[in-house]
Amino acid sequence: MKVQALERVGNRLRLLDQTVLPHQVVYKDLDDYREIIVSIKRLEVRGAPAIGIAAAYALAIGVQQDTSHQRDYPMDQLSALADEIRRARPTAVNLFWAIDRVMDRIRQAGELSKSSLVDMLWGEAEAIHEEDRRMCRQIGENGAALIADGDTLLTHCNTGALATGGIGTALGVIYVCRDQGKRIKVFADETRPLLQGARLTAWELMQEGIDVTVNCDNMAGTLLQQGRINHVIVGADRIAANGDTANKIGTYPLAVLARAHGVPFYVAAPSTTFDLSIATGKDIVIEERGGNEITEVFGTRVAPEGVNVFAPAFDVTPTELVSAYITDTGVRPGGRTD
Amino acid sequence: MKVQALERVGNRLRLLDQTVLPHQVVYKDLDDYREIIVSIKRLEVRGAPAIGIAAAYALAIGVQQDTSHQRDYPMDQLSALADEIRRARPTAVNLFWAIDRVMDRIRQAGELSKSSLVDMLWGEAEAIHEEDRRMCRQIGENGAALIADGDTLLTHCNTGALATGGIGTALGVIYVCRDQGKRIKVFADETRPLLQGARLTAWELMQEGIDVTVNCDNMAGTLLQQGRINHVIVGADRIAANGDTANKIGTYPLAVLARAHGVPFYVAAPSTTFDLSIATGKDIVIEERGGNEITEVFGTRVAPEGVNVFAPAFDVTPTELVSAYITDTGVRPGGRTD
Repeated sequence: MKVQALERVGNRLRLLDQTVLPHQVVYKDLDDYREIIVSIKRLEVRGAPAIGIAAAYALAIGVQQDTSHQRDYPMDQLSALADEIRRARPTAVNLFWAIDRVMDRIRQAGELSKSSLVDMLWGEAEAIHEEDRRMCRQIGENGAALIADGDTLLTHCNTGALATGGIGTALGVIYVCRDQGKRIKVFADETRPLLQGARLTAWELMQEGIDVTVNCDNMAGTLLQQGRINHVIVGADRIAANGDTANKIGTYPLAVLARAHGVPFYVAAPSTTFDLSIATGKDIVIEERGGNEITEVFGTRVAPEGVNVFAPAFDVTPTELVSAYITDTGVRPGGRTD
Repeated sequence: MKVQALERVGNRLRLLDQTVLPHQVVYKDLDDYREIIVSIKRLEVRGAPAIGIAAAYALAIGVQQDTSHQRDYPMDQLSALADEIRRARPTAVNLFWAIDRVMDRIRQAGELSKSSLVDMLWGEAEAIHEEDRRMCRQIGENGAALIADGDTLLTHCNTGALATGGIGTALGVIYVCRDQGKRIKVFADETRPLLQGARLTAWELMQEGIDVTVNCDNMAGTLLQQGRINHVIVGADRIAANGDTANKIGTYPLAVLARAHGVPFYVAAPSTTFDLSIATGKDIVIEERGGNEITEVFGTRVAPEGVNVFAPAFDVTPTELVSAYITDTGVRPGGRTD
């Protein structure tokens, strides 16, 4: 893989700045945890798994850079640092999860010298990163078994190396297909309003030598109608106990169209994305975002001043429209019965 | 109505340049038919009926401006001019229809002096314009009977005063509802790639005092899922004999979603949009446009250099997904049976 969203380099974190893609390829080597927080806030690093990994590295770097304590490091100071990192994104479940996991491990370890603490924090961050890498690879391998040589896939948003610590989820399936020698074509929905498909998925797949074509979200119906798509494959932000899936806005219409054309619709996600505390999609609250993401495209105003805007960040696809869930622990059937 | 796309002013055609809306309101007074062709090509004037009217005016202006013939005007030169105008847009059936209608009338008239020819061409263009105005009003009245006070409508692209010589087709229905005192709410798909919904429909409806909300095309599924839409109403570029409907890309997915949610899907169009020479939608050739409409948004590049792009301008909605056709001659049932 040529594309990597983030990487430990010595005692620094190297981040690929995704806000300037695809125009510029800029890596940032960060040795200040506050810079990592800014990168998370600015969406220079994005994708739930990648944010969690970046947060864990930020905690290690935050303690490492603090010269006010040489021998030991006060627990309340570590907690304050963890809280500061937690506030970088208010709704990023993986961010909280990663910080909580590291903090639990430190608390279990008991008293530590500062240098042992720093080693342990780096080690935990690397472990989280490595587990994500492995999970992506397993999702990819489980999903690749469903895809044949010569197939064409349609995907939405960005669920690849740019969004995770490894090869991605939905795009991970495509990379494993490539590694297995299957010739795969991909159509990438541009994914309004933030155009992650056009800006990130297209760039990432081109870097990796995969045949990719960008289309507007509203053109997917024509692709399916023309019989050009063998599988639709997307990621997931959150999956309810019954399988209803919250994902980037625009996923639900794809699922309806896929069923109308008898084309399989797959959700590729780590098994940790299943949230058993949520019974069905009805219990998922849909975040509405600022309307200016729609009315302005990279600084150009495209709608009249003062117009009302409807801007949900994600939608919920009922399990009846999902052919299968591709996870690291295997392929589970969805509620779609055709 | 405050909004008007085009108007004869003396011996010129006044066009509202729709490429700079909603930022600027710029009218162009054109006395060169080549400028009108450029305006049609650049989508400064757009919408099938408005293009037909502009084409008829272009023919009058083209002969009027030609100083190489004073007394009479050779028929083969008129035919060449007509062909040049016909080529402005390959899929605009109204353009061909308007030009053919004028040419038939001229042929029937027999030999004419140049000044009589010019008068006749202007007269025919104005007659086409006036008929379109009347047709829009009739479509509006026929459609308004289907809409109740308090209803919320979802529409796509722009099918209003900006697209026609009158109050529009799908939006004409909304204007007549307003004139009848019905309180109507409208959701407008932004309509990628050229954003006619965000730029034009939102602007036009705001000018006319109608409650409008803009959403990305991929958010329409959520609106339908949430039960917030009573009717989906769109225009048409071309309707085959069996009712299959070519319209702006993104219409077909709306029709699939509307059926999935049991929400009526209406096509509002002049009866002249039915092209009986085309048996079904399979015979409609889909125009593909330049990929840069997708990869660049008002000059900002949003996809990698060199990426493949799929950019159909239209899609075809089978009649099985259409609840009814709202035309100037009445409401005809579609092929949808629920």
